[in-house]
Amino acid sequence: MAGARAATMREREDEVMTGTLVLLRHGNSEWNAKNLFTGWVDVDLDAKGEDEARRGGELLKEQGVLPDVVHTSLLRRAIRTSEIALHLTDRHWIEVKRSWRLNERHYGALQGKDKKQTLEAYGEEQFMLWRRSYDVPPPPIEDGSEFSQAGDARYASLAPELLPKAECLKDVLERALPYWYDQIVPDLRAGKTVLVAAHGNSLRAIVKHLDDVSDEAIAKLNIPTGIPLRYDLDENLRPTNPGGTYLDPVAAKEAAAAVANQGKK
Amino acid sequence: MAGARAATMREREDEVMTGTLVLLRHGNSEWNAKNLFTGWVDVDLDAKGEDEARRGGELLKEQGVLPDVVHTSLLRRAIRTSEIALHLTDRHWIEVKRSWRLNERHYGALQGKDKKQTLEAYGEEQFMLWRRSYDVPPPPIEDGSEFSQAGDARYASLAPELLPKAECLKDVLERALPYWYDQIVPDLRAGKTVLVAAHGNSLRAIVKHLDDVSDEAIAKLNIPTGIPLRYDLDENLRPTNPGGTYLDPVAAKEAAAAVANQGKK
Repeated sequence: MAGARAATMREREDEVMTGTLVLLRHGNSEWNAKNLFTGWVDVDLDAKGEDEARRGGELLKEQGVLPDVVHTSLLRRAIRTSEIALHLTDRHWIEVKRSWRLNERHYGALQGKDKKQTLEAYGEEQFMLWRRSYDVPPPPIEDGSEFSQAGDARYASLAPELLPKAECLKDVLERALPYWYDQIVPDLRAGKTVLVAAHGNSLRAIVKHLDDVSDEAIAKLNIPTGIPLRYDLDENLRPTNPGGTYLDPVAAKEAAAAVANQGKK
Repeated sequence: MAGARAATMREREDEVMTGTLVLLRHGNSEWNAKNLFTGWVDVDLDAKGEDEARRGGELLKEQGVLPDVVHTSLLRRAIRTSEIALHLTDRHWIEVKRSWRLNERHYGALQGKDKKQTLEAYGEEQFMLWRRSYDVPPPPIEDGSEFSQAGDARYASLAPELLPKAECLKDVLERALPYWYDQIVPDLRAGKTVLVAAHGNSLRAIVKHLDDVSDEAIAKLNIPTGIPLRYDLDENLRPTNPGGTYLDPVAAKEAAAAVANQGKK
């Protein structure tokens, strides 16, 4: 009896449809050229970033990866990336969901600061700790700062203790996971192709979870901008293609090499 | 006892928050210049239409009419109008809902046809009947037509009898009203500022309902493009400003006069 029941459940499990996940990191923003820490500051894409979004949309279209639903952060550079890519893919009409839980890492008191000046002021060790450590957040931003989100209407409905004043990657993972489980997983379970248009760190958080990347290894993992990263998930929501598949693997490899060389300078 | 109960209910009614409705009709599309019937064919805005969307966004921003949620059709020209306007208003991050029920009137077999040639082929009386009568639909489109939406992925989840092959304004009203009641009214009841970015005829259907416009009078009512039309609604969802208030009344009057003169030629 118990055996028969287990077999039935097993059959049901096999029937669960699991969709396709596509991660898309936004491209160049207006503050990249200015070399400023951005975080939750809502800067726009620049012309290069718009081109990257178009290229992302073209790759989706060429390879027939057609999203049924899109999840974005509340930040303009991710939202516009999704809009540009989806218009190109002729999927501008799909369902849209957004959440602060997909936002970029909050960069605390560093938001709006020049990266080079910050490096000089605090030294390389501290600078790299803030940039790349898994669990050391930068100093918190003050509510009165022009780069604080304390009075921002888009976060007005959040409980005050939820609005970050600074985040490390661990914080991003912890606030992104409830959204992953509650909003993205049900769409995947329904067999949908799910596009997540977001940021370097919120996407790294999702990848860390999916690929079970260690706290140490995630520091070195960099997701290239504008190249859709596809994950095919099994019935346990685990990748059948660990690490995912970039829709333009050559460009992704070149982008990774460029980041590695940058570090060597 | 009954009196006390009525008083309590009355008080409750007074407490119901009712939001602000803003209607925005998309501007010039690529088929305006070509003088083709469009309907459900998914043509894009042209440069003038993009400018109109920007102007709409500027008016919202200048006058502090800041949407909390946007409802759009499934057609690119309305979706892009909403995106352009909302980015300008710094409200790109708000909740998005879409429905085929806000689509433009389905123009049947006339979709993709040249307006001038159609006028010459069928005569002015028939032509004006199709364009302006309340309850005479144009001939139905064939599924095999390149301008049919029979195989369009965005309507794949609809019951086949729901997908129109041609519509008169009465049909548009009948399919738009369930969306009004089920999706827009709850947002208004929650006290939200609700932007509806849609089309000449789906917006005329909403206006006909709100202002209780007669079947005859609605034929002459034309909503200018790109100028947000604001309705303040009482607790019964009826306008306290019948006819609504255009955020640029001078431009709206000029646009109405231009349409009237067009008819006289």
